[in-house]
Amino acid sequence: MGSLVDSFALHNLNKKIVMGDNGYVFEDVPHLSDYIPSLPTYPNPLKKNPSYSVVNQYFVDEDDTVAQNIVVRKNSPRGIHFRRAGPSQDVYFKADDVNACIVTCGGLCPGLNTVIREIVCGLYSMYGVARVMGIDGGYRGFYSKNTIPLTPNVVNDIHKRGGTILGSSRGGHVTKKIVDSIQDRGINQVYIIGGDGTLKGASLIFEEITRRGLNVVVVGIPKTIDNDIPVIDKSFGFDSAVEEAQRAISAAHVEATSFENGIGVVKLMGRDSGFIAMYASLASRDVDCCLIPESCFYLEGRGGLFEYIEQRLKENGHMVIVVAEGVGQDDEQVDVGLWISTRIKEHFSKEKKMMINLKYIDPTYMIRAIASNASDNMYCTHLAQSAVHGAMAGYTGFTVGPVNNTHAYIPFDRITEKQNKVDITDMMWAQLLSSTNQPSFLSTARSADNIEANKDEEPPIQLSDEETNQLSFLTTRVDINEANKNKEPPTELSDGETN
Amino acid sequence: MGSLVDSFALHNLNKKIVMGDNGYVFEDVPHLSDYIPSLPTYPNPLKKNPSYSVVNQYFVDEDDTVAQNIVVRKNSPRGIHFRRAGPSQDVYFKADDVNACIVTCGGLCPGLNTVIREIVCGLYSMYGVARVMGIDGGYRGFYSKNTIPLTPNVVNDIHKRGGTILGSSRGGHVTKKIVDSIQDRGINQVYIIGGDGTLKGASLIFEEITRRGLNVVVVGIPKTIDNDIPVIDKSFGFDSAVEEAQRAISAAHVEATSFENGIGVVKLMGRDSGFIAMYASLASRDVDCCLIPESCFYLEGRGGLFEYIEQRLKENGHMVIVVAEGVGQDDEQVDVGLWISTRIKEHFSKEKKMMINLKYIDPTYMIRAIASNASDNMYCTHLAQSAVHGAMAGYTGFTVGPVNNTHAYIPFDRITEKQNKVDITDMMWAQLLSSTNQPSFLSTARSADNIEANKDEEPPIQLSDEETNQLSFLTTRVDINEANKNKEPPTELSDGETN
Amino acid sequence: MGSLVDSFALHNLNKKIVMGDNGYVFEDVPHLSDYIPSLPTYPNPLKKNPSYSVVNQYFVDEDDTVAQNIVVRKNSPRGIHFRRAGPSQDVYFKADDVNACIVTCGGLCPGLNTVIREIVCGLYSMYGVARVMGIDGGYRGFYSKNTIPLTPNVVNDIHKRGGTILGSSRGGHVTKKIVDSIQDRGINQVYIIGGDGTLKGASLIFEEITRRGLNVVVVGIPKTIDNDIPVIDKSFGFDSAVEEAQRAISAAHVEATSFENGIGVVKLMGRDSGFIAMYASLASRDVDCCLIPESCFYLEGRGGLFEYIEQRLKENGHMVIVVAEGVGQDDEQVDVGLWISTRIKEHFSKEKKMMINLKYIDPTYMIRAIASNASDNMYCTHLAQSAVHGAMAGYTGFTVGPVNNTHAYIPFDRITEKQNKVDITDMMWAQLLSSTNQPSFLSTARSADNIEANKDEEPPIQLSDEETNQLSFLTTRVDINEANKNKEPPTELSDGETN
Amino acid sequence: MGSLVDSFALHNLNKKIVMGDNGYVFEDVPHLSDYIPSLPTYPNPLKKNPSYSVVNQYFVDEDDTVAQNIVVRKNSPRGIHFRRAGPSQDVYFKADDVNACIVTCGGLCPGLNTVIREIVCGLYSMYGVARVMGIDGGYRGFYSKNTIPLTPNVVNDIHKRGGTILGSSRGGHVTKKIVDSIQDRGINQVYIIGGDGTLKGASLIFEEITRRGLNVVVVGIPKTIDNDIPVIDKSFGFDSAVEEAQRAISAAHVEATSFENGIGVVKLMGRDSGFIAMYASLASRDVDCCLIPESCFYLEGRGGLFEYIEQRLKENGHMVIVVAEGVGQDDEQVDVGLWISTRIKEHFSKEKKMMINLKYIDPTYMIRAIASNASDNMYCTHLAQSAVHGAMAGYTGFTVGPVNNTHAYIPFDRITEKQNKVDITDMMWAQLLSSTNQPSFLSTARSADNIEANKDEEPPIQLSDEETNQLSFLTTRVDINEANKNKEPPTELSDGETN
Repeated sequence: MGSLVDSFALHNLNKKIVMGDNGYVFEDVPHLSDYIPSLPTYPNPLKKNPSYSVVNQYFVDEDDTVAQNIVVRKNSPRGIHFRRAGPSQDVYFKADDVNACIVTCGGLCPGLNTVIREIVCGLYSMYGVARVMGIDGGYRGFYSKNTIPLTPNVVNDIHKRGGTILGSSRGGHVTKKIVDSIQDRGINQVYIIGGDGTLKGASLIFEEITRRGLNVVVVGIPKTIDNDIPVIDKSFGFDSAVEEAQRAISAAHVEATSFENGIGVVKLMGRDSGFIAMYASLASRDVDCCLIPESCFYLEGRGGLFEYIEQRLKENGHMVIVVAEGVGQDDEQVDVGLWISTRIKEHFSKEKKMMINLKYIDPTYMIRAIASNASDNMYCTHLAQSAVHGAMAGYTGFTVGPVNNTHAYIPFDRITEKQNKVDITDMMWAQLLSSTNQPSFLSTARSADNIEANKDEEPPIQLSDEETNQLSFLTTRVDINEANKNKEPPTELSDGETN
Repeated sequence: MGSLVDSFALHNLNKKIVMGDNGYVFEDVPHLSDYIPSLPTYPNPLKKNPSYSVVNQYFVDEDDTVAQNIVVRKNSPRGIHFRRAGPSQDVYFKADDVNACIVTCGGLCPGLNTVIREIVCGLYSMYGVARVMGIDGGYRGFYSKNTIPLTPNVVNDIHKRGGTILGSSRGGHVTKKIVDSIQDRGINQVYIIGGDGTLKGASLIFEEITRRGLNVVVVGIPKTIDNDIPVIDKSFGFDSAVEEAQRAISAAHVEATSFENGIGVVKLMGRDSGFIAMYASLASRDVDCCLIPESCFYLEGRGGLFEYIEQRLKENGHMVIVVAEGVGQDDEQVDVGLWISTRIKEHFSKEKKMMINLKYIDPTYMIRAIASNASDNMYCTHLAQSAVHGAMAGYTGFTVGPVNNTHAYIPFDRITEKQNKVDITDMMWAQLLSSTNQPSFLSTARSADNIEANKDEEPPIQLSDEETNQLSFLTTRVDINEANKNKEPPTELSDGETN
Repeated sequence: MGSLVDSFALHNLNKKIVMGDNGYVFEDVPHLSDYIPSLPTYPNPLKKNPSYSVVNQYFVDEDDTVAQNIVVRKNSPRGIHFRRAGPSQDVYFKADDVNACIVTCGGLCPGLNTVIREIVCGLYSMYGVARVMGIDGGYRGFYSKNTIPLTPNVVNDIHKRGGTILGSSRGGHVTKKIVDSIQDRGINQVYIIGGDGTLKGASLIFEEITRRGLNVVVVGIPKTIDNDIPVIDKSFGFDSAVEEAQRAISAAHVEATSFENGIGVVKLMGRDSGFIAMYASLASRDVDCCLIPESCFYLEGRGGLFEYIEQRLKENGHMVIVVAEGVGQDDEQVDVGLWISTRIKEHFSKEKKMMINLKYIDPTYMIRAIASNASDNMYCTHLAQSAVHGAMAGYTGFTVGPVNNTHAYIPFDRITEKQNKVDITDMMWAQLLSSTNQPSFLSTARSADNIEANKDEEPPIQLSDEETNQLSFLTTRVDINEANKNKEPPTELSDGETN
Repeated sequence: MGSLVDSFALHNLNKKIVMGDNGYVFEDVPHLSDYIPSLPTYPNPLKKNPSYSVVNQYFVDEDDTVAQNIVVRKNSPRGIHFRRAGPSQDVYFKADDVNACIVTCGGLCPGLNTVIREIVCGLYSMYGVARVMGIDGGYRGFYSKNTIPLTPNVVNDIHKRGGTILGSSRGGHVTKKIVDSIQDRGINQVYIIGGDGTLKGASLIFEEITRRGLNVVVVGIPKTIDNDIPVIDKSFGFDSAVEEAQRAISAAHVEATSFENGIGVVKLMGRDSGFIAMYASLASRDVDCCLIPESCFYLEGRGGLFEYIEQRLKENGHMVIVVAEGVGQDDEQVDVGLWISTRIKEHFSKEKKMMINLKYIDPTYMIRAIASNASDNMYCTHLAQSAVHGAMAGYTGFTVGPVNNTHAYIPFDRITEKQNKVDITDMMWAQLLSSTNQPSFLSTARSADNIEANKDEEPPIQLSDEETNQLSFLTTRVDINEANKNKEPPTELSDGETN
């Protein structure tokens, strides 16, 4: 494994960076051989597998990397690259020695069962690995529950069902006890499927394993229905979720159009990012206003939401509002869909004479629980197989996902250090604004040309990361938690989860 | 029209009852000729319509009646009969003279657009009637809005969409102003699609029309997604609603099975009757407890819901609860789904050490807004055509619907005087209890035989109508409104509507 | 059992007819006690079942009958009645003694698995019966295969899948060997799910069992996706099939409207009856011509199909034709969809200058294989439970099904002696003609009044049963088998296109 | 436009290639200014569009290019790049001067209507263009039909329907007459949506336009349900098609599992490439054998299909075969699904004693006609908007599509010069082989190591392009057209059954 990587101390296993000419940067992932010397290797059994044996070019070259920058100029620096995912010529495990486990954590997401299925089937059919077990009910299951035997037969049809057959859970767990369990049970491949918090936990498990010098690989498979994972193109289940979200929007549209001044409000997932809301709104085309966490808005006054609602109702007689769950708040204590519905009803009942017919739809659990569609099934299959190839090749402490359509191995910290957000200065959000005709919630006097000149107007816009700070003085932006301090919060029922 | 009916004073147009041998009773519907003498008749144009002309037996005989009692014994009385729906030999309107209108009132229900379509197309294709208008936005639209021209072309594809293209509304209207509008616009056929309250309004409109002696027929087409209309077999849209309700139950089941002690709570429509809840529970088979307005239940103590939940979670690790919206309350101020979810969470967080994962799904607006399925499309077509045949034949002040699979004309008061309820002493509810294994919420010592003997136990059962009165002393039965008096009610967002 | 039935010799077990006053006729079904005297009875265990025990009226009275005639007149005779289905006060089997088996025969139909599930679960939950086995692969499985143990756990989720978990088969079997197997295995309740031919086989099995004097009940559950079973309201799976058939029609409509002179041809099931074709056409409203076995048609000349196609294409630019598989033929040797598509293409390519774009869709296997919808799930549940109640009560040699919405026990011969057909002199077919505007394929000069006068014109109409005979001289009616004798069979129909 | 491109003669407008350092190659697309000097430009109206005005970085830089090679090594050459799609700072058309037209050609594909909608809405909402017309019925419509006015209102809901509202057609057209019509009608933006043949036609139209020196841009939007377009990541409608294809596979699976030795054969689209077959097989996981044009197979003998079928039936009792329409043939004269079904039936009826139950499903037209799913709606929106941005910026003679997830402008010849094929030496095909366990149809003695050594064995494998030539001597590969020459064509395939 020495061709690209020189030598690393244990403490910076996560930072294997190789520089090349013309600004080429390669961020590699850790490998068992980084901290365990002289590990034996074996020829990849795929070489003898009739399905895979046709031609040699099937195997990835260990110098193959995947470029993150796809838009380049003639002389622009080449930028960051990741290790290409795929089968390697040699593996670090004998089939009979592998003892793998799979754990799913956090909220539901379409495709969980497909990923489980394909890890099990991939290990079995590609590498002849027969010992795979499921951890019951998330991280805590490592030490508090029996394991679930997973065979190709057991998982054969699970991709047709939503949810996770392994069960999931949120919240606290003890890294040391998990690694104890891994060690005690003789597990040497750990597949962890979960969101941001889960992968941070996986990173700690990986560090503890390296500290103990165990011959155990840890693979994280990023999961979030919100699609807010950086670096990778798209998270699994997102397509299926957007498809299902359209059903709720369609229902809201029917309700809205069937009553005078009908307003349909649909809350969609997205605590920190509005991808589902934005995609579902764009795909359905029935939405008049889409509110996402990345873009501030305000209710009252000129250019505010109430004014827009009133204008739309007068023009069209109805409107559909999609709101991402994380809009206007820092935590998840308030159901923003209920909150905004209440505020709209109050506004039009008290201050105006306009009678409205508002219907609020929260399809969250109906979306999370569906089975993955064909596109996600393909994606999950690819994801699981990339994970398996990487684990067999001895890589550890890595996640996997498509970078510009090519699967790559990505260090944990690149996935967990920040979240992917809708870029409201990018084309897609502009398309959405153009599609809905909703106000940009900039004060109307403002324009791109005089943003600086007008900053005394305290406009409630939320711009790019850099600009957000300088706009933090904005007192008119909507903060539900603040606004609710002196109010009885609406009864809140949904269980929060680590995603 | 004299063969069955002798003579009626205006005040009892709604009570045209004919007695026959062996207990035969025929409850006929009013007819224009009851209060307008010497109306001319015309041969039914269907006789010349190539599609319908094949054979004479197509026309209903005016002596044809439909038996309400289908389970009979050798010598049992023959019971109540209704007028058979269908085309008659003679009609009371010339095609060119007809000026029909359609109005939809109350909440959405799958199939509304199909009924509208088929009235328009039926009048046109069967009777050559070209003048049909839609009333915009429910009853008030008669005097506050312009009408909407309805042609076969306009309505051609509307059956593929949910909602109502005419718009709907709830609440108050002025009968006199409606009849003024009917008279002023020269309308002579009024098709009213709506629920209980709407049909009571239709009855008043009919009475006002007869009082004025207008040559105008009034037809009510009963609509309720709850299926709580008496006499008729099933209300339109019910099949489609049950189909869609299964999706929510399925999602709740996935959520429940994916988390430790997972509980999925689904609220389904049904203010006064639990048909949708019962049918969807029976059809899906994933439900562990189904709560309907007709059957009381209690939360605490032996045989109560909390005990059952605890037992189920210990046995299975998860459960699904379906609750009809009207459970435990007399009005619609409280969202019973939210209420029961909160109570369950409180119970298990405060009094017990059991950690539960409860997810609450309210699919109401997603169910109401779907397009009708094939079965409901067929039903709506039949319903609309029966209505058209009856109107053309001069019948008025009637509703239409299938009685033992055969369409009949039914007097208003038979539909509006009481609601259809799930009979909890009937086989289907027993099947449900057997399917879910839920407690009957009878105290265990009780049996059917010793209800009287044990009344000191004050069990919270709700039996048949007669028994309900004598059980009204039950103080332990759940009454949410009472229970909530000293609590802040959860924020309530859904607009109530006349159904 | 003596109240209604006096005494029957073995040879007319199928003919237990009781006459009453006013034309009341009761056609009862056989009972074990008819040929085995002094059988012991036991109290129905439902009496002690908490789910069912609420009230006594749950049990059916043995004098309850269900009227077949629902449209009656004041003094009309009361007509034929069947035994009401449901639990009886006493049963003829102890739970522990029951050894039941289920067999499915013939083609697939949505709901087969639900019926299987509900027989197993009904026997278990209502009567405490634990011994149920499935016969593998249809009738022959009785003697050529191992049986499949069926428990509530095994069948728990099968209603969500299409097909039959027991397997099915067509064709020959040996009654004697089946009854030998029943006797050898100690089976005493035989549930047979199948179509016309299967039920005739069930009748022979029943006769052989009575001949041997075995204490074994035989229950037939009629299955046909074609809905051509007489007496009962509707066969299970029909609703689901019509729903799915609409998808094919919708696709044909899209194809037809997207190309100049586009013609979409959809073949639907229906060897002898056109119910699916008629219902799907009426429900979808996108069909311009629906051809069913009950109604003859002709291709050439005035008033023929070709003329109608040409006229429609000139008016609308496209058309959709639905054809039931049994149209124009006596056996199933020719694919009528392919045949008619070829004939249309030949006609317009050879004899006319009109370029057409014909697409042929055969969704048969996609329809048959779907899981049953909610409505069919409910129906299948009811059907299975009625069957179980009847078997436990000792009835045998009977089928079960809804008669005017009330489940009844019906003698075998009433189900098998003839098929239900679309009555082309009834309202629904007229509605279809009116909806499609297709020609009635009567010569235009003809009318109902002068059928006799014009019989020299040899019109190709197929009327009611009585009239069919007298029209059999028609030589111009389409007989595909005859027409094909001297032709090359069609090979390839799909239009290639530039992509 | 001079920064990257120097000067081009008319005859090589399609070959604008710029070389850079480190192997950087930029294949640019033609531009109006290449052959019309001194065209005026205008500021992009998006600058004043409130939705798009937020920040300047929205506009693409004219030096932005998209890399085709995404898998790179440290010092590998940079490879081919394409022009990045997106709005430019200056446009070559004033909104009021634009007169755009849209034409759709070839077979149906999900998403056609969405592309049409988004071109119309994109031109209108982004650039203020109000004059867009549809060409009726494909290329020939330019000169043989009236145009169809397209406004945002007309196209508002069309994305919810399958097919194309403009109509389509195949086959011949006259380039000169099309360009005459473009010139006569004053059209200056031509959007052409179609497949390989259509884009070749578009290339000719573009050339004729440049020859005449017209100020008209020609944009091709590649369409193929088969996903066989090179360079771009995926063609629109493919996702939706794979989703729907799974339904047919699922039905085939149900049919196969319900009968002894049940075989379900599903034919899917793919004349020259097996993408749909491969993706649908991988996504569904119910497929035992997937046959695609890129991979030869043989029926008889050791390692052949018949042997595999027999083995599978003996092991599992059923199997599902997916076959792409282009398998084993060079033209489309034979329905390969029917052909292979017939061959299988013949084999097992004549030569073997094995009774099989084969069901053949051809869902082609049901797949083509569906509406696009959410994912394809998003894709089509992006595609249409990229096309509009490019046209407004004066680019012409180009197609548009995602290259490694980033939309780019691609010269016609890169799209039309060859087709994308399933690479059977790549991972995904290996995954499929591994998933189905089907034989690789290599003779069993062969392995990757001794391919050369064994070439005398004449194995029927089809390898990469280069290898295909050297394997063309294979005489045993299946060629249906050849094989059929001396045979009676198949007529009837469906197994009759007792119902």
